[in-house]
Amino acid sequence: MTEKIFRVNMSTLNATLEEVPADWMGLGGRGLTSTIVAAEVEPTCHPLGKRNKLVFAPGLLSGTNAANSGRLSVGAKSPLTGTIKEANSGGTAAQMMAKIGCKALIIEGQPENDNWYNIELSDNGITVNQETELVGKGNFDVVAGVQRRTEDKSGIITIGPAGEMKMLGANISVKDPDSHIRSGGRGGLGAVMGSKQVKLITIKPTDKKIEIADPDAFKDANRTFAKALVDNPISQALATYGTNVLVNIINEAGGLPTRNFTSGQFDGHEEISGETMHDTIVQRKGKPRHNCHPGCVINCSQIYNDAENNYKTSGFEYESIWAMGADCCVDNLDHIAEADRLMDDIGIDTIETSVAMGVAMEGGVLEFGDGAGICQILREDVAKGTPLGRIIGNGAGSVGRAFAVTRVPVVKNQAIPAYDPRAIKGIGITYATSTQGADHTMGYTIATNILGVGGSLDPLSHEGQVELSRNLQIATAAIDSTGMCLFVAFAALDDSTCLPALIDMINARFGIHLTADDVTNLGIQILKTERGFNEAAGFTNKDDRLPEFFSDEPIAPHNVVWDISNEEIDTFWNF
Amino acid sequence: MTEKIFRVNMSTLNATLEEVPADWMGLGGRGLTSTIVAAEVEPTCHPLGKRNKLVFAPGLLSGTNAANSGRLSVGAKSPLTGTIKEANSGGTAAQMMAKIGCKALIIEGQPENDNWYNIELSDNGITVNQETELVGKGNFDVVAGVQRRTEDKSGIITIGPAGEMKMLGANISVKDPDSHIRSGGRGGLGAVMGSKQVKLITIKPTDKKIEIADPDAFKDANRTFAKALVDNPISQALATYGTNVLVNIINEAGGLPTRNFTSGQFDGHEEISGETMHDTIVQRKGKPRHNCHPGCVINCSQIYNDAENNYKTSGFEYESIWAMGADCCVDNLDHIAEADRLMDDIGIDTIETSVAMGVAMEGGVLEFGDGAGICQILREDVAKGTPLGRIIGNGAGSVGRAFAVTRVPVVKNQAIPAYDPRAIKGIGITYATSTQGADHTMGYTIATNILGVGGSLDPLSHEGQVELSRNLQIATAAIDSTGMCLFVAFAALDDSTCLPALIDMINARFGIHLTADDVTNLGIQILKTERGFNEAAGFTNKDDRLPEFFSDEPIAPHNVVWDISNEEIDTFWNF
Repeated sequence: MTEKIFRVNMSTLNATLEEVPADWMGLGGRGLTSTIVAAEVEPTCHPLGKRNKLVFAPGLLSGTNAANSGRLSVGAKSPLTGTIKEANSGGTAAQMMAKIGCKALIIEGQPENDNWYNIELSDNGITVNQETELVGKGNFDVVAGVQRRTEDKSGIITIGPAGEMKMLGANISVKDPDSHIRSGGRGGLGAVMGSKQVKLITIKPTDKKIEIADPDAFKDANRTFAKALVDNPISQALATYGTNVLVNIINEAGGLPTRNFTSGQFDGHEEISGETMHDTIVQRKGKPRHNCHPGCVINCSQIYNDAENNYKTSGFEYESIWAMGADCCVDNLDHIAEADRLMDDIGIDTIETSVAMGVAMEGGVLEFGDGAGICQILREDVAKGTPLGRIIGNGAGSVGRAFAVTRVPVVKNQAIPAYDPRAIKGIGITYATSTQGADHTMGYTIATNILGVGGSLDPLSHEGQVELSRNLQIATAAIDSTGMCLFVAFAALDDSTCLPALIDMINARFGIHLTADDVTNLGIQILKTERGFNEAAGFTNKDDRLPEFFSDEPIAPHNVVWDISNEEIDTFWNF
Repeated sequence: MTEKIFRVNMSTLNATLEEVPADWMGLGGRGLTSTIVAAEVEPTCHPLGKRNKLVFAPGLLSGTNAANSGRLSVGAKSPLTGTIKEANSGGTAAQMMAKIGCKALIIEGQPENDNWYNIELSDNGITVNQETELVGKGNFDVVAGVQRRTEDKSGIITIGPAGEMKMLGANISVKDPDSHIRSGGRGGLGAVMGSKQVKLITIKPTDKKIEIADPDAFKDANRTFAKALVDNPISQALATYGTNVLVNIINEAGGLPTRNFTSGQFDGHEEISGETMHDTIVQRKGKPRHNCHPGCVINCSQIYNDAENNYKTSGFEYESIWAMGADCCVDNLDHIAEADRLMDDIGIDTIETSVAMGVAMEGGVLEFGDGAGICQILREDVAKGTPLGRIIGNGAGSVGRAFAVTRVPVVKNQAIPAYDPRAIKGIGITYATSTQGADHTMGYTIATNILGVGGSLDPLSHEGQVELSRNLQIATAAIDSTGMCLFVAFAALDDSTCLPALIDMINARFGIHLTADDVTNLGIQILKTERGFNEAAGFTNKDDRLPEFFSDEPIAPHNVVWDISNEEIDTFWNF
């Protein structure tokens, strides 16, 4: 079917289907959300005001049978960072949106009343309805409520109480194949959805299928591509231990930020490691491997049960476990799992919120190691929007300002995730220069600095880190446009059949003839579009810096500081 | 005596007296604090970290008999705005510092322990002592405690609990001649003093006198100058009604921001007006006129008693009364006086904190009009540092972020004061372009837009507003360097004898030959130094903007929006 731009104006409640402008035809996912935000949003606008727009876009291959192609991109001006923002998520929505012909959904304007709304997308178009029943509910109740209401397998995109309260750490969650949720976590896009007073979006199932220009070529390429993914040793480790395989690896590398970034190793790392998690899951009859969207062949997710073998959480990620674990000195996986579930239900980014807890611990709000205290604050303060809950729900920078803590690991006000830039310097370049604030997924140098993927580069040396981060940021921008999970990058970097097969799939899908250079150029174009937006919003190279404590405080065990000069950082944009 | 730079390093507790560099010789007050901050502080440093410096400087004429010359400038990188900052204050400290030969006091570094300190300045030099007794005390107790301890008329510079907690609205207070306090209010400089762990600074009285190069010429010029001040009709109105004479005037002009900047007139304006205040003071046996520093001939301060004729507060200013009154819809002067006293004791800026209360009212924290509620929050939350108290103590922008309010009247995160820029457009140019965030005192166009001083310019028209603000900002930077109270500007603008007499005094003091052009050039140089610091800190013209609600929401009674284009604003710096 013909793809359309679905547009909803929340000031007027008008909804329209529009032709896809020629310039946007070849774009999907992040390439499309960033292009639309840059084209239609005033860079200096208030992110929670009527001038911001929230854009959802499935990837170029979403809705096809391509392995791992079910990621949904969400874009807007971020209320957390003030920059352009793309966050992406698994779940079923991207593929369902693609199948109903939704190239992108743009939500603009803002109601002038206090009503909340839901938006229904289907192959018949868009309906906007007032929502009352599910307002105030957590994400799990929203999913259950929509399923009762629709009695079908509708896709669901939702915000929890954090998004309704427009907390700057609020995320946007997407129902997964098992009616659990996945989230586009970073940058407070849930607050933007809340500012539009949209509690949830549903996507009606359709029998329609994506048209493939050359079905045989597509099938062949997909077979090669999926084989490359499945055969990759890192894919296999991810299937066994989840992303949490990294706890022991990063601890060993001395780059596991501990006790609010005051050490690079955590004494309790074994208790929270992927190995321990795997054994616990098996013992409690959970699932060590699980897919976040149909068609995933890696299965890095898992079902983590509690001690009574009842479901507790899924998509229990390394970065979340690191943040509540090492960074807050909590060595109890069950406390971490409980906090993870609470954050999913409240609809708030696990990285931002947990790093915020670490800063709050340093500020004397609670003790390091107090996992039960974290859960208590999440339940009684963040979920209910008390003043303390709002301080924490607004992220690590907010906690630092509130409690006058100067050791606050943020770039552009977004929390630095699970890899210390002093001990793994490439990732520091990514944090500093990313168009989106500190975000490891924007240029995951851990691959080459630590995992030996795509070559190897000493994490402690200066040499080559800017180039490494640049190449990965360009590649990532392109991958984020395909609808592919970022974990295809491990195979793409090390298996010479993988990337050509991915490009072949895109070509077979659309009947076009992209080359590898075209894909690189797409990545470059996306980064430059995003950078242009940020500059027009007032950002300069002065914002491309790590907090000064990284330069002042050596971190154990390597006793290293962040010592890449500002001049060297600024060479990042020389392309 | 020879002037010295007094320098204290709080990392090492070393204190030194240094020769005054030749470049700094001709500078005082703001000219000197801004020059020192620009020369010695890394513009991108964390304002509450060890790289920031806190600089105190008396004006060029402080310590002499020049009328109204007792203002003390305080400078640093502001933790509230991120810009360079100068705040100034009355009280006795500036004159006493000048008399002991302190050209400027620079406090740098940061203790690595949790100790608090006091600093004693005298004509013998500097002593740094650990402080225990007065830590945690409010400003009134600090003043009383120091007076008990020293048994003399030491000058006192102090921070309250807000500064100790490093709240971004914390101010720095200075003892006045009656052992009450005056404050350098804006930009959170009290938090910088708190970050240095300096609770208070004392200045020992001395018998030494300032050397005057040409005493007779000085005396003549001072006589002319003082007469110009005393004869000025605005000086006379200030002596009768205080600055609060403005409530009725600005209300009549439709520029009195009311109910968190949603109207330009306040129904309760009579109840909080200068006229009502004057009558209340007289009836309660207070003092309608009072000086904030020795040698002031205007006497715009006053002693406001409570209903039992007991002292309640002094220096009860229009901007404070407006902020708690019209902006929070409180029409009860006694509630406002109580809040004013509490804020003075806590050591927090009345403008920032009261505008923050207005935003909190819009965010549902308390009801508009609830003056008792304001006092309760100040006493129980701000003073004690509860999470709510920290949100409010960090200012209006902080409250907006915490409670997701988008109508937040700030520029560069500093609260917009008592003159609505939609109805008085010149002041909007000052708010937008000031090097210090929104601050009426940086270029007080109200003089010409409303009071007919220095000519008259229609407050509702575009014409000439940029030029008016520019000329006043340049003149103000120069006046702020002399130690003069800004209120000399009314006479300076309208009485042709005033400014020449001021320049004659400077010349007679130092034996130099400044012209009016030299003074203008000094103002220009200061503004450019400050602007340069801000640019190096990452500020661009995108920061020289009012919040978008001013452009979207017309204000009664004139039904006007802020409609001066960004391009026109940016012409401000064409000089």
